[in-house]
Amino acid sequence: MMNYSIPASRDAAATLDRDDPLASVRDRFHLPDGMLYLDGHSLGPAPKSALAAVTGASGQEWANGLIRSWNDAGWMDLPLKAGGRIARLIGAEPQDVIVCDSVSINLFKLAAAALPLAKNSDTLIVEEDEFPTDQYIIEGLGNLVGVKLIRAKAGEGAAALAEHGGVLVKSVVNYRTATVVDMSEHEQIAQQSDGVIVWDLSHATGVIDVDLKTAGARLATGCTYKYVNGGPGAPAFVYVKSDVAAELTSPLSGWMGHASPFEFTSRYSPKDNAARFSAGTPPILSLSALSGALNVFDAIEMRIAAAKARALGDLCVARAAQMDLPTISPGIGENRGGHVSLLHENGYAIVQALIADNIIADFRAPDAMRFGFSPLYVRFTDVWDAMDRLENILATRSWDKPQFKTQSAVT
Amino acid sequence: MMNYSIPASRDAAATLDRDDPLASVRDRFHLPDGMLYLDGHSLGPAPKSALAAVTGASGQEWANGLIRSWNDAGWMDLPLKAGGRIARLIGAEPQDVIVCDSVSINLFKLAAAALPLAKNSDTLIVEEDEFPTDQYIIEGLGNLVGVKLIRAKAGEGAAALAEHGGVLVKSVVNYRTATVVDMSEHEQIAQQSDGVIVWDLSHATGVIDVDLKTAGARLATGCTYKYVNGGPGAPAFVYVKSDVAAELTSPLSGWMGHASPFEFTSRYSPKDNAARFSAGTPPILSLSALSGALNVFDAIEMRIAAAKARALGDLCVARAAQMDLPTISPGIGENRGGHVSLLHENGYAIVQALIADNIIADFRAPDAMRFGFSPLYVRFTDVWDAMDRLENILATRSWDKPQFKTQSAVT
Repeated sequence: MMNYSIPASRDAAATLDRDDPLASVRDRFHLPDGMLYLDGHSLGPAPKSALAAVTGASGQEWANGLIRSWNDAGWMDLPLKAGGRIARLIGAEPQDVIVCDSVSINLFKLAAAALPLAKNSDTLIVEEDEFPTDQYIIEGLGNLVGVKLIRAKAGEGAAALAEHGGVLVKSVVNYRTATVVDMSEHEQIAQQSDGVIVWDLSHATGVIDVDLKTAGARLATGCTYKYVNGGPGAPAFVYVKSDVAAELTSPLSGWMGHASPFEFTSRYSPKDNAARFSAGTPPILSLSALSGALNVFDAIEMRIAAAKARALGDLCVARAAQMDLPTISPGIGENRGGHVSLLHENGYAIVQALIADNIIADFRAPDAMRFGFSPLYVRFTDVWDAMDRLENILATRSWDKPQFKTQSAVT
Repeated sequence: MMNYSIPASRDAAATLDRDDPLASVRDRFHLPDGMLYLDGHSLGPAPKSALAAVTGASGQEWANGLIRSWNDAGWMDLPLKAGGRIARLIGAEPQDVIVCDSVSINLFKLAAAALPLAKNSDTLIVEEDEFPTDQYIIEGLGNLVGVKLIRAKAGEGAAALAEHGGVLVKSVVNYRTATVVDMSEHEQIAQQSDGVIVWDLSHATGVIDVDLKTAGARLATGCTYKYVNGGPGAPAFVYVKSDVAAELTSPLSGWMGHASPFEFTSRYSPKDNAARFSAGTPPILSLSALSGALNVFDAIEMRIAAAKARALGDLCVARAAQMDLPTISPGIGENRGGHVSLLHENGYAIVQALIADNIIADFRAPDAMRFGFSPLYVRFTDVWDAMDRLENILATRSWDKPQFKTQSAVT
């Protein structure tokens, strides 16, 4: 395995790029000329294979194959096939992962299904710095089924689970700080307290080395439009460990989760595995793009990709320290998700200035500038150049007062 | 308005085609050479504008615009804009319709939200011949929230609503028979009994002249991949009458239904109108195809399109009567959805024989052959030729015994 070090000069960064075992993967993406894209934690760029897949699915399979493509082009099997390929990225068995719906919808399904598994089925737990939609969905579920919601302090979800039991919804990588949770430790606490964790892998899948089996995780969902590069709003996935699948009831019991959807029976009889969490007819064009995007990962070891992502982040953190820019992300050598959040009271204006220079990062109120480092297409020299530009902006621009503003873009 | 009569010869059918005010609409579709496509009640063919839209959304907006396209390409506004254009097809106000998720998911949201509106909030009602996923979803919701489910006999949902109150889920057009329900009559019964109807417009939208406002309908969802031609698994829509929207709580309270999704607040605060029924991030590529498909409808009066669809169906029913083929669909001159179901104990084999001749229809066990007549691209001569071929198959083929089989294709 390649040992990615922190380069001390642009030349050293270029040497790392030259020796990078993942260097050729970048060619598999469509990347606009001159753009330095550091926003893959929000929306991944287009793999050429994803663009080809969506062209084929629309212009050929739909336009010419029409209804026959449900069988002939394999549309019926896409959710489980794509799920099986995502499984390899998160340390799961292929049949335990299915692509369906959005993370929001899947969190609802999994948390509702988890309640009867938990010792104390009257408690839902979410941390107060959890990604907002996770909080909203759990709030909505709690109101619907009359279950109380505990809003734990940041980092105290597991302690609340140990104390109260119930169901905890928890991101593996925090969307703001990129802090990575110890999944095994959490699962031990959950299983000792007869509690259940529903993992959100949105900011983790495709960039850190998730190992659901080793961690003993039972339920998870995640997003595919960030580091998996599945396209804008690409459908999410559900992971269910096979030995609990048969005990679980999806509350959204749509026909695609039925054991025999085309028998048109009146009573619901779910599939055996994770596929029972499918609901309605999947959006085939978006799903085809995701399926094409997964081709990029087929030859990649997540262990190597994760090491490179951490090294890219380390370089960012090291350069930021030289500029006296504080970060809320884990430091050099620590476990960290694919992005780094640097703080500045004029963060919004600074990110706008970077974007004007074709360096794409994003901003989260009130003061976090997020830089995302996908190991598949970001180079060490890219990080170096972006930090050079950031340093230049800080040295040459001044602001009378902080310009707080909300950036409207999808996380 | 054109008076479409039943042609008594192929020449008469050709004359109708020549004089058809919708004749030129056919050119806006990509239709495979030599294929006679009568399966638009299952999956509509590709409008050229839909193919162009998905090419632009993937190859340009995603590939080059990347994250900026959420604002610059208007992705954020697509669900409400597409909803507003569907509104015109179903007699609704533009702001009362939003595109999101699947029919299955939307039925769950609407039925759950309707329960507190209904006098007797302990009852869900569905008819036993309702489309299966509608039955499954209501069964799942009932189990989750502990509300009893009444399975009424076919056509007796309104009577059950009058007797018990509660929430009835009801298709406007039956998926098997194409029978059309009197929506106004149903709504009167619902409102007299303080009950609520959640309408499923899946087999109605884009082919019959739905008028939600006149009918007094409050809640509806529907599919866009059939007669709206939005593409395989295209996202569905939700209709909520504006004067009840503020009273309704979506149980799937995802961030896209939040009044300010990018404020990243911890508490849920829904949007004012139907858009509060959005949940997660929408599948933009599939949504873009739908948006492109809606261009076809922009110059079309649904009144005229519906009259043509009924006339095409009348011709099918008339020809079937000459062959002594029984139908379970409404007769000539009666109100009927866009398809006709003809019965034959060897229906499966007959449909396979038609498909082998490039005449695409479908089959529903045990004996229903379904022929769909979209007014946008089906010609009177197409119906004539398909019925000629059917007559020929019946006259020349024989089967030892009925060959029952389930056809695996998405309704």
